[in-house]
Amino acid sequence: MDLIQRVEAGRGEFLLFALTPPRHDTDRERAQEIADTTLARLRPVGLDGLILYDIDDETQRNPAERPFPFMPTLDPADFLSDNLGTWETPVIVYRAVAKYDAENLRAWLAAQDPARLMTVLVGAASSGTQARTSLNDAQTLRREANPNLATGGVAIPERHSRREDEHLRLLAKQDAGCRFFVTQVVYDINAAKNLVSDYHYECQRRGIPHAPIVFTFSVCGSMKTLDFLRWLGIDVPRWIENDLEHAADPLAASYQQALTTATELMAYCRTLGVPFGINVESVSIRRVEIEAAVQLARELRAELGR
Amino acid sequence: MDLIQRVEAGRGEFLLFALTPPRHDTDRERAQEIADTTLARLRPVGLDGLILYDIDDETQRNPAERPFPFMPTLDPADFLSDNLGTWETPVIVYRAVAKYDAENLRAWLAAQDPARLMTVLVGAASSGTQARTSLNDAQTLRREANPNLATGGVAIPERHSRREDEHLRLLAKQDAGCRFFVTQVVYDINAAKNLVSDYHYECQRRGIPHAPIVFTFSVCGSMKTLDFLRWLGIDVPRWIENDLEHAADPLAASYQQALTTATELMAYCRTLGVPFGINVESVSIRRVEIEAAVQLARELRAELGR
Repeated sequence: MDLIQRVEAGRGEFLLFALTPPRHDTDRERAQEIADTTLARLRPVGLDGLILYDIDDETQRNPAERPFPFMPTLDPADFLSDNLGTWETPVIVYRAVAKYDAENLRAWLAAQDPARLMTVLVGAASSGTQARTSLNDAQTLRREANPNLATGGVAIPERHSRREDEHLRLLAKQDAGCRFFVTQVVYDINAAKNLVSDYHYECQRRGIPHAPIVFTFSVCGSMKTLDFLRWLGIDVPRWIENDLEHAADPLAASYQQALTTATELMAYCRTLGVPFGINVESVSIRRVEIEAAVQLARELRAELGR
Repeated sequence: MDLIQRVEAGRGEFLLFALTPPRHDTDRERAQEIADTTLARLRPVGLDGLILYDIDDETQRNPAERPFPFMPTLDPADFLSDNLGTWETPVIVYRAVAKYDAENLRAWLAAQDPARLMTVLVGAASSGTQARTSLNDAQTLRREANPNLATGGVAIPERHSRREDEHLRLLAKQDAGCRFFVTQVVYDINAAKNLVSDYHYECQRRGIPHAPIVFTFSVCGSMKTLDFLRWLGIDVPRWIENDLEHAADPLAASYQQALTTATELMAYCRTLGVPFGINVESVSIRRVEIEAAVQLARELRAELGR
């Protein structure tokens, strides 16, 4: 069973790795070099699939200054078709739907092979954003243009801590056709467990099957990475900041934290019978952080069933 | 090295078990039966010491109704001298100082053997409480009446999440003579790590040694226990409540959570070089919950150095 069949069957225990495409001004040859280096690094991990993020200029998400200036990246769909053709397992391509007009989105959705690709449709980061296409409209387009193309949605445990209704948002997305969910980077184990738990018991109450929830983990080895994660709205705990300022090996501490949190969440989901996947994300462009993320994926591979 | 020598040397890796004395109206024979059963259960665990709580009527702590009516218990100091004489390792006796007038407290402090007993002085739960003795005065009494008697203080990670100054409170208590700290039950791993981290780096900055921090864990296997923990001011996460309402074996889930959180905190403290102890508390009077707490202590014993 490959990743897509697994998601269709509502089965979990799969491993993904998430990439951000190279900058928009990267030339063709350099983009291919980056792709080749990345795939060579990832092939031995035994991934069930790749995630390609679609980076939007989210300056409206947060009035604070963006820690890194916004750099448009290559379109993940183009990066996939132009540079990642030799990758063997399915790929999940994100679409920040506010960036695209309806015709452009419809054409892309219609052209995708549902046996090879899935998509995650992401709405505008802020309701103040001028969206070319709303998340609702994008979901409708997907159903019309390519009904067999499996679609996922984002899940935000931190929002559940504040509003206590993220499980209902997931169920509404599921009604609209979502077959899986992907979280942002998980630091707060109890927030994640609370979301899984509320989602599980609400599925049970309604008598509907679970969609797999993919938990994202990363390492944070530099102050810039920390600032960026916080700017993205992730509650990175203070002890990680302290370690970054003082500790001999903060990267090792954040690696250990991610490993432990992932292992505990996996055990918890298994106890409840909620299907889950693991996604490891490399946030930074520093080589040591990328390599730590790949190592994290390898170590989590060993913890997953098949 | 026994527990008291270890604390004096600022060394951690010790294991405690906390008991609440029997109800005040328990007759002498029944109190001895309870003590004998408890000690027989605890002897095989290999504890470095016992904690005896001093329960105060804390109705002023919280305007909500107390889930269990307040039941005065035997004085832990009396329970120790009358019924626990055969226990081999040191005992930490709590004193809810607001309950005692200064002379009573001074006499008790003066009579204790510093080679066999330590005390934790706890201030009034709310500033609105009419306190017979304040925490400050109790600390002064201890220094005057029995300067060699090692004293501990309470540490509250949840308060650190709200006010971000709990590490400074610990350092003030340390200045007043505290040689160790004991937390309330830990559910929020990041709150505990944030406190340890801030405490550690502030000790480093001031060039003073750490006092061992004792982390308390428990199991929660019934709705009454959950209500009581929440009433005491502990943030028990929602997923535990859900499990209690729905899951086949909520006690097992809360056991697993305690074990994982303890293991992760131990690893984190070792990385930083902060000395720590582990305290397992039995909150409930249900036999199955008591036995799970004892089993948790046995399992954590194996994780501790000597």
